[in-house]
Formats: sequence, C-alpha cells, structure tokens
Amino acid sequence: MDTDPPLQLRVFDLNCWAIRYLSKLRQERIGLIGDTLSQEGFDLALLQEVWSERDYCELKQKLTAPYPYSHYFKSGVIGSGLCVFSRYPILDTFLYQYSLNGYPYMLQHGDWFCGKAVGLLVIKICGIMCHVYVTHLHAEYCRDKDAYLPHRVVQAWELAQFIQHTSKGADVVLLGGDLNMHPGDVGIRLLRDWTGLRDSFADTERFEGCEDGCTLVPANCFTVKEELQPFPLGIRIDYILYKGLSHFVVKCDSLVTTTGTAPGKSIPYSDHEAVTATLCVKRREEAKASSGSAVEPGLVDVVNEARTEVRVGLHAAEHQRYSNGRMAILALLLLLLQAAMGLSSLVGWDSPQPFPKFSFSLLSLLATVVLLLSMVLYVFHTIEVRMLQGTEEQMRLALQALQDKLSSM
Amino acid sequence: MDTDPPLQLRVFDLNCWAIRYLSKLRQERIGLIGDTLSQEGFDLALLQEVWSERDYCELKQKLTAPYPYSHYFKSGVIGSGLCVFSRYPILDTFLYQYSLNGYPYMLQHGDWFCGKAVGLLVIKICGIMCHVYVTHLHAEYCRDKDAYLPHRVVQAWELAQFIQHTSKGADVVLLGGDLNMHPGDVGIRLLRDWTGLRDSFADTERFEGCEDGCTLVPANCFTVKEELQPFPLGIRIDYILYKGLSHFVVKCDSLVTTTGTAPGKSIPYSDHEAVTATLCVKRREEAKASSGSAVEPGLVDVVNEARTEVRVGLHAAEHQRYSNGRMAILALLLLLLQAAMGLSSLVGWDSPQPFPKFSFSLLSLLATVVLLLSMVLYVFHTIEVRMLQGTEEQMRLALQALQDKLSSM
Repeated sequence: MDTDPPLQLRVFDLNCWAIRYLSKLRQERIGLIGDTLSQEGFDLALLQEVWSERDYCELKQKLTAPYPYSHYFKSGVIGSGLCVFSRYPILDTFLYQYSLNGYPYMLQHGDWFCGKAVGLLVIKICGIMCHVYVTHLHAEYCRDKDAYLPHRVVQAWELAQFIQHTSKGADVVLLGGDLNMHPGDVGIRLLRDWTGLRDSFADTERFEGCEDGCTLVPANCFTVKEELQPFPLGIRIDYILYKGLSHFVVKCDSLVTTTGTAPGKSIPYSDHEAVTATLCVKRREEAKASSGSAVEPGLVDVVNEARTEVRVGLHAAEHQRYSNGRMAILALLLLLLQAAMGLSSLVGWDSPQPFPKFSFSLLSLLATVVLLLSMVLYVFHTIEVRMLQGTEEQMRLALQALQDKLSSM
Repeated sequence: MDTDPPLQLRVFDLNCWAIRYLSKLRQERIGLIGDTLSQEGFDLALLQEVWSERDYCELKQKLTAPYPYSHYFKSGVIGSGLCVFSRYPILDTFLYQYSLNGYPYMLQHGDWFCGKAVGLLVIKICGIMCHVYVTHLHAEYCRDKDAYLPHRVVQAWELAQFIQHTSKGADVVLLGGDLNMHPGDVGIRLLRDWTGLRDSFADTERFEGCEDGCTLVPANCFTVKEELQPFPLGIRIDYILYKGLSHFVVKCDSLVTTTGTAPGKSIPYSDHEAVTATLCVKRREEAKASSGSAVEPGLVDVVNEARTEVRVGLHAAEHQRYSNGRMAILALLLLLLQAAMGLSSLVGWDSPQPFPKFSFSLLSLLATVVLLLSMVLYVFHTIEVRMLQGTEEQMRLALQALQDKLSSM
C-alpha cells in the first residue's frame, strides 16, 4: 500500500465579490471565473461571496463537464455565498451556521443577513476520504476599533470545534475560505493550534504571487486604497489550510496567488486575489496517533487570549442589552403617560392648555416605534449574551482539559 | 482484550418542566429530582427544560459529590434548558442549534425563544469514548394540524446528520431527550434509520413502567388530560437511543419509567415520566465495518417521506413570506399617501374637508407599526424558506447517494 503513487490535488479558492447591483463588473467577472475554472480543470474550487443563486447556476451550467459535482450552501436571508465545484463525487454535505454574526441593524455592513456559516463536503478522491470545509467569517471594517472581533473569535472557535468534531472519519482535511483575519490574529492562531491545520502559504515548497501571500492588495483595481494604507503590501485573509490524518500525510507543493489582475486579462477576478494550492497526499508508512493526544504548548495561551476577547464582547453585549432594555422601559412609560392623558381628556378633565393633538399623536408614533425596536434588540442582545457566555464557558472547560493533559504528560 | 468485563451504564433521562413562575411545584420537584439523582448515583443524567440557570446551579451544588462533572448548554433567549450531570470527566462539549425552531411571534408556544439545540458531550468512561447527545425538539401542539411538523422534521434531519458527522471517533453513541415525536413518526424513523441508533424501549430485555413505554401519561397529575384524549395509554416522546461503533456492542439490559408519580412520593418529578436505561457495553471480538457502508432498505422511503414534509413546509413558508411582503408594501403605500397629503396641506392645497388630524396620525402610527413588523417577518420567513430549500436539496443529494449505494450493492 505504501507504494501507491501520491495523489496530487489542485485546489482553487476565491472570494468572488459577486453582489448583485453592487459589485463592479460582476457579470464579466463571473464569466471570467467560469472560463478559468473550465480551462484549468482544478480538482476543487471553493468559492465565497457568490450571493446570487443565478450566478451559481450560470457557473454550474458552464462547468458541468469539468466539475460534474457542485453544491451551494443556503443560509441567512441572501444565502451563505458559499459554493463548491468538484471533479469528484460529493457524498454528503453539512452546514453549521455560526451562532454570532454581527448585527441586523448594521445594514451598511450586511454580514448578519448572509447567515455566515461553514459548509462541510465529504468527497472521496481515489479512495481517500477528504473532508472539505469552506467558510467566510465576519468582515473586519475597522481594525483599530473592531467591534466585530469577539464575534469573529467566536466564529473561529466554532469553526475549529466543528472541524475537530466532524473530521474524525477523514483521511484528509481541507479548509478554504476568506477568514477575514491576518495571519497573526488570535482567531487564526486559535484555529490552527486547536485543529492542527497547516497553512499552505507557510508550508509551501514553491510560492508565486503577491508578496507575503497577500490576497487583498493595492494593485487590485477594486480594493479600497484607503483601507489598505497601513499595509502597503496588502493583507492576507484568504487561506487554504490542510492536514492529513492517521494514515495520510499532506504537503503543499506549490501555492500561487493572482497579482491584481486575472492572468492574461486586464481586470481581476474579484477584489480578492485567487489562491491556488497544489497539494500532495501520500500514504504514511505507519499510522500517526490521533492528533487529539498531542497538545501544542502555546495552545493554552491562545485559548486564554481568545477567552479574553470573548469576555470583552460579553461586556459590550451586556451593555447594549441594558441600553435597549432601558430605552424600551422609557418608551413604555411615555406611552402609558400619553394613554393616561388621553383618557383624562376623554372623561373631561381637560387641562386648560391641551397638548396639540397632532404632536401628541406623532409622539406616540415615535414611542411605539422605539418600544418595538428596543424590545426586538433587547431579545437579540440577550441571545448574543447567552452565546458569548456559552463560548466563554466552553473555553474554560477546554482550558481545564488542556491543563489536565499537560500536567499528565 | 475480549475478556474485559462488560461496562454497565445507568442513564437517567427526564424533561424536568422547570419554567420559572409557570410550572407547578417547580422548586419542590427540582429538590426531588436532585435527591433522587443523588441517591441513585446514575452514571449519566440527561435533563431537559431546566430553563433557569438558578435551578441548574441548585442541582449542581447538591450533586457535586455523586456527579463531579456537569454542563449546561446556553442558547436562545432563555437558554436551551439542556444540562447533563456525569460521574465521569466531560472532555469536550459542542452545541448545534437547529436552523429552524418555530416562530418568534408564537409567544404562547415560546419554543423559538429557547433556541432548541443538540448538545454533544465527549465523555471517556473506563477507556471507552462515549459521545453523549442531549436534545429537545420543537413541541407538537396540535397533532391533527401540526404547523411545526416541517420544522421538527428538519430538526430530526439535522440531529441525525450532526450525530453521524460527529460520532466517527466514538466507541459508544448515546442520545437522550424529549424528541416530541411518537415512535412511528417520520422524524424518529428518519433519525433511527439514518444513524443506526437503537431504541432502548424496543430492544430492552426487561421493561418496567407505563404501558408501551409512554412518558406522557394521563396518570400524571400535571399532564393536560384533554390533549391525551386520543391516546388513552399516553404517548412516548422521551427516548434513550444508543449504538456501539467498531469494536463495541451495546445492549439494553433494562428500561424503567416512572408511572405518574416519583417512586415513593405523592407528586411526579415533572409532567413527563423519567426514563432510566441500564446499558451493557461489551467489546466485540472483531471490529464491525463502519455503519456508513450498510444501507437500510427502507431508508430511501423514509428520506422521501421526510422530503415531502419539508416541501409542504416550504410552500407554507413561501406563502407566509409573500403575505408579509404584500402587507409591507401596502403599509408603505399608505404611508406615502399620507406623506403626500401632509405635504399638500403644508403648501396650502388643503381639501375642503380635511382628514381629521388625530385619525390621520393614528393611521400613520398603525401603518408604521405594520410596516416594521411585516418587514421583520418578511426577513424571518425568507430565512425559513432558505433553510427549508437547503434541507430539501441536502435530502435530494442524500437520496442520490443512497440510490447509488443500493445500485452498486
């Protein structure tokens, strides 16, 4: 068995930035992406931000021959945006929606409406069981004052946990997606250390593309230059991560990113650069012990750091909940006061100078709207508080288990 | 190794019906449950509907000695109500929230606010890796016209998928909880056939308790007798299911339910009967092939039946979404009309008989509230439609994979 030739897997990953009516040159770019996928004949193409199912269907129609198997993960109001095209049969799929994903009232950001999630696909390639994960985490809109950091850390933790719990039967684990985290961020360290996934950029034998493997670069005509000002080379937020389990070992032979435009074209595929990894999967001579038994020494620190971020988020969420509760009570008091005034005027206890009816009605309109919105937001932030508390407790349990393991080593 | 003595596991399962201010004799019953758990010294106690964390803390404090390990799963607005007490260390936990769980506006039912979920606990017992699942599915309020059936079928499908995907590394799988499904319902058949889990009532060697293993019986003083009228013996909706994987085989030696009151007491633990299973876990001489390779012949029919229910739910959800969209448009039109009338009166184009200002304002208040609510509900039902479409698509893929497997057998 050890003489089986190694399996070569070519994996393509791209955040397509395909928002109907908003993304520039969407149709041309979707056409271009389809053409490239068709010509290149990758083994797997992991796409994010394909928000419109019509775009997915267009791609699917074009790619039936080179990629007979595909899947679109539905979730949220406008769909998860996640889809996968595969040369090999997809045996099973499973979707995990992150418990926290921004705020519905942040309409200008809109992440909440996408129902951000991680999709799992079970794909058997030449007898090797591959668990392929595709995801897209909450965006970072302001690095200095990142209100979404706790949510993203929770997402990274849930992603790590989901991968660990669902990959026990796999030979090879692959994760591709826009993680919206820089390589040194706490979330990505947590994900890598918890799961043992390797970063194709850090481990590749050959690399070609943007400096430091960046995937959001100033050279791309669609990127917002002001946002990239603190990072002259750009930032790396799109990843292909992998690991081999038990009898298999995976290496990254080469990694290629586009460099601001699609190869041979004048426009890029997207505002993100595409990442293509060529992985080599080899059967190991001796089965490796399950990764669950080895503990990275720095893991305790990373989980602690992540837990601190979750706690910060918890305080903010509790404060928001409190504010909304107070606002709801004030609006309710105002309505009750108005009701009392209305009733008193009905029974003839009119004050000498009655409140003008029109302003009175407008005020009650405002109070009702505020009451309704505050109540909905109170419920929303209560769910947020619960989930942050739950994650914090889970991390505490994980730390305890880690420390027990380390002390028994 | 085959000479290892078999492991005996005593598992207790109970829906505690512990809603603060609403459930009768809550504090007495929680005290009683704590006393029983303490005296009996089960290996695992899987509890549902412990809605108040104060009740959980009270139980935890009382049970520290016999059950040093415990976990409460937080989710939704009021918590998932799920908790577990264990004699053995809990190594890891993971929560999966069902994507569909009723409607927030059905306040009288309230399931939506609980964030119904399945909790996974990884527990190592005498070297045997046990994956313990505890869950509580959406209630059935009217069996003849069950508006929640599609949601419950989706929950059963997600539960089955979650168990299948997360139990690959387990030796023993245990599921306990209030599934809110009768033994012959499509959801429970789907769950059992998809996962290969065995029903402790159907397979037990000795049974003691209510006839047919019922767990909601007229003899219980807290049950609503009218609801049980079509079922004179009661109904069975609380289950302990199990299976052994690879090297292990699990049998149910005995199953006991309470019969309307707690043993030796005048009141019951809850409106549900408690279920206690004594399981025997034995090492198998030869490892069994992974259950993934065997296909139950009736599974295709069950998945088809479930898919039909999901489709029915999809039509209903699409209709709801359409109604809410239409209502939002009407409210918006009314508001625009009022704005135009208001503007026209401001610029002096007053009609000879102006609309009374007070009614005018009341009408705009009503239109604004309707617009807001309809918009929120439109978004909510759009998410519902997406999730039902996604599940339907997943089931289609599963059917295809099943048929491929069956044809290759």
